[in-house]
Amino acid sequence: MEDKVIKMEHGAGGELMQNLIKDLIIKNIEKKEAGGVGLDELDDGGSIPLNNFRGNVVLTTDSHIVKPLFFPGGDIGKLAVSGTVNDLSVMGAKPVALSSSIVVEEGFDMNKIEEIMKSINKTSKEADTPIITGDTKVMEKEEISDLIINTTGIGFCKNPVRDSGLNSGDKLIITGPIGRHGISLLSFREGFTFESDLESDVQPINSLIDSALKAGGVTAMKDPTRGGLATALNEMASKSNLGLLIKEDKIPLTDGVESASSILGIDPMNVANEGIAIIGVKKNKAEDVLSELKKQKKGKKAKIIGKAVKENKRKVVLETKVGGKRFLEAPDGDPVPRVC
Amino acid sequence: MEDKVIKMEHGAGGELMQNLIKDLIIKNIEKKEAGGVGLDELDDGGSIPLNNFRGNVVLTTDSHIVKPLFFPGGDIGKLAVSGTVNDLSVMGAKPVALSSSIVVEEGFDMNKIEEIMKSINKTSKEADTPIITGDTKVMEKEEISDLIINTTGIGFCKNPVRDSGLNSGDKLIITGPIGRHGISLLSFREGFTFESDLESDVQPINSLIDSALKAGGVTAMKDPTRGGLATALNEMASKSNLGLLIKEDKIPLTDGVESASSILGIDPMNVANEGIAIIGVKKNKAEDVLSELKKQKKGKKAKIIGKAVKENKRKVVLETKVGGKRFLEAPDGDPVPRVC
Repeated sequence: MEDKVIKMEHGAGGELMQNLIKDLIIKNIEKKEAGGVGLDELDDGGSIPLNNFRGNVVLTTDSHIVKPLFFPGGDIGKLAVSGTVNDLSVMGAKPVALSSSIVVEEGFDMNKIEEIMKSINKTSKEADTPIITGDTKVMEKEEISDLIINTTGIGFCKNPVRDSGLNSGDKLIITGPIGRHGISLLSFREGFTFESDLESDVQPINSLIDSALKAGGVTAMKDPTRGGLATALNEMASKSNLGLLIKEDKIPLTDGVESASSILGIDPMNVANEGIAIIGVKKNKAEDVLSELKKQKKGKKAKIIGKAVKENKRKVVLETKVGGKRFLEAPDGDPVPRVC
Repeated sequence: MEDKVIKMEHGAGGELMQNLIKDLIIKNIEKKEAGGVGLDELDDGGSIPLNNFRGNVVLTTDSHIVKPLFFPGGDIGKLAVSGTVNDLSVMGAKPVALSSSIVVEEGFDMNKIEEIMKSINKTSKEADTPIITGDTKVMEKEEISDLIINTTGIGFCKNPVRDSGLNSGDKLIITGPIGRHGISLLSFREGFTFESDLESDVQPINSLIDSALKAGGVTAMKDPTRGGLATALNEMASKSNLGLLIKEDKIPLTDGVESASSILGIDPMNVANEGIAIIGVKKNKAEDVLSELKKQKKGKKAKIIGKAVKENKRKVVLETKVGGKRFLEAPDGDPVPRVC
């Protein structure tokens, strides 16, 4: 290993994090699968086939360290439930139950915990997913700041949908505007005046994904969180061994994100989203899936943004607004730290 | 709420923690079960019945914050896997898969992470339970010290074994000597000279529990971690609405724990264990279960320590070595902080 200590970029969802996971974790763990999707796959979760049940249990985990705890459009509680529900959903699973484990600093205000719990409750009701077990730990003030929430979830599905499942010709749909979580958090932290639509997109989208699955033809899904759309698309290209051809002018953006990102000098393609998904769909079913998504409020701005092709394998090609073409690279990490 | 801020005791596994969980968490969360054991039950995990599968999925979670990361007999990696495997086991479930989520400080030594991963690997092999998904986050040095590991696990069983399942007349078995984890950690932190047998008991005991279940007659099980045997027995008494009559001289103790605890002035009944279980068994099956446990190395020192009775409901009565009787109270918390 070249780097001998942990850097912030190791947690930013990019290539450095992937390398860390491969070099330190994957390499050292030998028991990595239970007959289904395992740790090696670096998908949004793992799965366990149940033969008698004729289906799979999907397991996914996230520790949430977002700062500040309360931000425009949400808070750590809403994020914790949404993040895990959405990871299960993009694995093709119906979320069935969550665990919630809290590590909090000594001296922390209980009213804030109550506010976060109310938010967890509201989001779990919105996602129709119960929290059935939990854990509480307290650490000294010098050893942790505020609080961290781990949510782990299980879901059921017949067969998991993989982020590697694209076939040549499949269309790529994005279920909503990009960059809202990362750009709004950064603007809020920097104290920029706030435009009305500049809010995090954090929300559970299990019912939205469910409607896409019911329409049929879904071949791959992914949650573009840390590292944003650019990272998620590159991972999908890489894992399916195909090229992705993306039309820049089709990528949905809100006015707020467009103006704030240009002022901040941050590409919204590279920052985290917490309430959208990328869905790969067979060409002849793409319009059906799109129209089902658009029937729901959370999918009103869904768009077909491109397709999988045989050329430029493992690369993402962006057809720019001015008519040019360029490779869309994954950033080393997320330019906005501590977003999830 | 009388206390408006979090105190260390809120994380110590005792009554203060129970109150915190009831007042702040249970009260605010409405969706708390998925048809099986739910959050309200405050058991070692939750469960989800699968009708077609004719069984249950059990889910359990723990965030591990132990200090120091490496201690006599184990480290945070061994603890993380053992803790979750054991929680599944005492719910009567066969551990099937784990998730592992790490939050680490910027600047942390990668060689230490590697050492911890090797320990996770070794323990996951010992417990024959794979780690199928994970998450990695990095925080600034000022915001976290060293690293925290959340492990969440799922297991399968026909019907969960509850910590509330005792019936009057049932015998109580403890699978090994008590107090080793808490007393050895405290001694190590305080820099006391080390006796050869003063080591943490941290270990996965799923195969041990499995042999007890196969012998039959098991009615209740519990993991005496934070707050020790005293807390776990009081919870079992309270939840089953029975009294527990415990013979002090039957409780297995190592010489190392006995001498260190008297020097430290800490009752080994009140400190955490990480490699033993309390098993409630129907009277006529108790000797069978005991003899199965004793066949395994990890159960060699198992003992029948008492029984459930109709008198002194919701209380634990200790028959002391000198022939007296006293109520064994649960401590407010664990007298040794940051043990798991």
